[in-house]
Amino acid sequence: MEKVAVIGAGSWGTALALVLADNGHHVRLWGRRQDQINEINALHTNEKYLPGVALPTQMVGYTSLQEAVDGVSTLLLVAPTKAMREVLAELRPHLSEAVTIVHASKGIEPGTYKRISEIIAEEIPASLRKSIVVLSGPSHAEEVSLRQPTTVTVSSENIEEAEFVQDLFINQAFRVYTNPDIVGVELGGALKNIIALGAGMSDGLGYGDNAKAALITRGLAEIARLGTKMGANPLTFAGLTGIGDLIVTCTSVHSRNWRAGNMLGKGKALQAVLDQMGMVVEGVRTTKAAYELAKKEEVEMPITSVLHDVLFAGKDAKEAVDELMKRSRTHEVEDVSSLLSELQ
Amino acid sequence: MEKVAVIGAGSWGTALALVLADNGHHVRLWGRRQDQINEINALHTNEKYLPGVALPTQMVGYTSLQEAVDGVSTLLLVAPTKAMREVLAELRPHLSEAVTIVHASKGIEPGTYKRISEIIAEEIPASLRKSIVVLSGPSHAEEVSLRQPTTVTVSSENIEEAEFVQDLFINQAFRVYTNPDIVGVELGGALKNIIALGAGMSDGLGYGDNAKAALITRGLAEIARLGTKMGANPLTFAGLTGIGDLIVTCTSVHSRNWRAGNMLGKGKALQAVLDQMGMVVEGVRTTKAAYELAKKEEVEMPITSVLHDVLFAGKDAKEAVDELMKRSRTHEVEDVSSLLSELQ
Repeated sequence: MEKVAVIGAGSWGTALALVLADNGHHVRLWGRRQDQINEINALHTNEKYLPGVALPTQMVGYTSLQEAVDGVSTLLLVAPTKAMREVLAELRPHLSEAVTIVHASKGIEPGTYKRISEIIAEEIPASLRKSIVVLSGPSHAEEVSLRQPTTVTVSSENIEEAEFVQDLFINQAFRVYTNPDIVGVELGGALKNIIALGAGMSDGLGYGDNAKAALITRGLAEIARLGTKMGANPLTFAGLTGIGDLIVTCTSVHSRNWRAGNMLGKGKALQAVLDQMGMVVEGVRTTKAAYELAKKEEVEMPITSVLHDVLFAGKDAKEAVDELMKRSRTHEVEDVSSLLSELQ
Repeated sequence: MEKVAVIGAGSWGTALALVLADNGHHVRLWGRRQDQINEINALHTNEKYLPGVALPTQMVGYTSLQEAVDGVSTLLLVAPTKAMREVLAELRPHLSEAVTIVHASKGIEPGTYKRISEIIAEEIPASLRKSIVVLSGPSHAEEVSLRQPTTVTVSSENIEEAEFVQDLFINQAFRVYTNPDIVGVELGGALKNIIALGAGMSDGLGYGDNAKAALITRGLAEIARLGTKMGANPLTFAGLTGIGDLIVTCTSVHSRNWRAGNMLGKGKALQAVLDQMGMVVEGVRTTKAAYELAKKEEVEMPITSVLHDVLFAGKDAKEAVDELMKRSRTHEVEDVSSLLSELQ
């Protein structure tokens, strides 16, 4: 049994902590807010993030990072991309021996275009960490907390570390696969949030399932195009962390990014949407990062591009989605054939 | 402007006839039931199949195949796979000049494992037809009839014929792409109905979006595996007629195959489900055909295989879905890597 510190006590951090506790590991759940940690320790619930779910008594909450990480073999980071460097800088002084670092966050850093594992590698010296592992896939936290069947993928440059993390999490309801392509796994998880914003926007405008399926299909192609350019294996985008996660995020009203897009489609302004959500909407910053990265890398990303203009340049949402649906492309196979050339 | 006979006055045939009429073509809609054709000609509605939709007066209904096809340049066939040979045999004596034949049906013939275009080629002598074109993609008929944005793909061995059909249908709301891979386009449309049965079954059992996304992802991989073996371009399965159609069919309560699967998941017997549906559920026969074909071709299709056992061998639905979710596969990338070897 391992000692694991979960850094981030939101829905996903708590749900993953629950999987680890189910498997008999000693789990410490770190969060910044004292009242939330008190609730976890006294009432064994985390009502705001996982309403109605009973947490096991061996899951202990901490507000002190030092206490939370003391003596653990493994860190699981579940922080918003925006907060990642700050959390890692706070964490670093408390690490004394090399730990396995797993992250389950989905984003790209604007400006640097770094993936989360690259950010971790920059902030934590190599002497204090084993390989970095990402955990990603189609997984609503609520369903995981109800022990409904769920599949995810873990990936690392070091296959043995990935298998260690696979063993840590796998159980009857929570199936964990490995994939050696960490670039593809991280980019699929991050970039799908852009398409979810677009799918929500299409739904918000009153368009139907036909339009949404077209957007998701085209979205997968452009995600894979950028990902392949950045060194990913294009086939990863056909797997759980690509099309699987894309489907869950685009077709469920539980998805934050879909909800934000939906409000945009109904005509709300971005700031009003973000204020109303009150939670991080990763897709907004990821759209900015991916837009700039695609320009730099000269990769065609039409959905990302028009979404960028809606979010940051005042473009009308209806005009944007209509433009996407009515582009005068004719030969559909062209859209995916660029992948083929990468493969050969 | 072309004269087109649409053979089959169900939801999809009527919706496609509407697109053609919107584009100014002379459209004849053939159906077997006199009361339905009378309704189309007198009231300009087809209430059972497209409730609330007004049909244009230039769309004329026929029960006589001879009158319907007289002098047309193009036939659009929208019949269930099961009825296809019978309809074609009835049609053949009334053809005198070579017509373009488009079909929009989705199935594989049990026993022969033929695609629809192969059935058409067998039943209509080459002298009486130009190339055969398939029209397929993510498209609920109801949404098409409301002129909501929709994208489809046309495919033919003859690119000029595909482009002729593209021009026939394309308009602002109905976007038509071409793809030269007719094998992939037809197989994607047919095989996705199997996965939709499985997705409905998972939902019927009370499993969530995580489980369904996993099934769809694995389903895409096995569809592509069989398709590639049959000569399709694997990239076609990443397009509108592959993943696009799969998403629409698996995530919408409008889908017949999803609804049938849902009832099976809730414990109903197959015959009771089919009786209650009262409409053709293509996925049931396609599962049988694909199961046999996969065996013959030695292609691994785990979802098709357990669904076959539920439909035809009395296997318990819950046991079947649990078996799929809890297989002890570990390396996810293996699932798609077989495609890579086909590409290289």
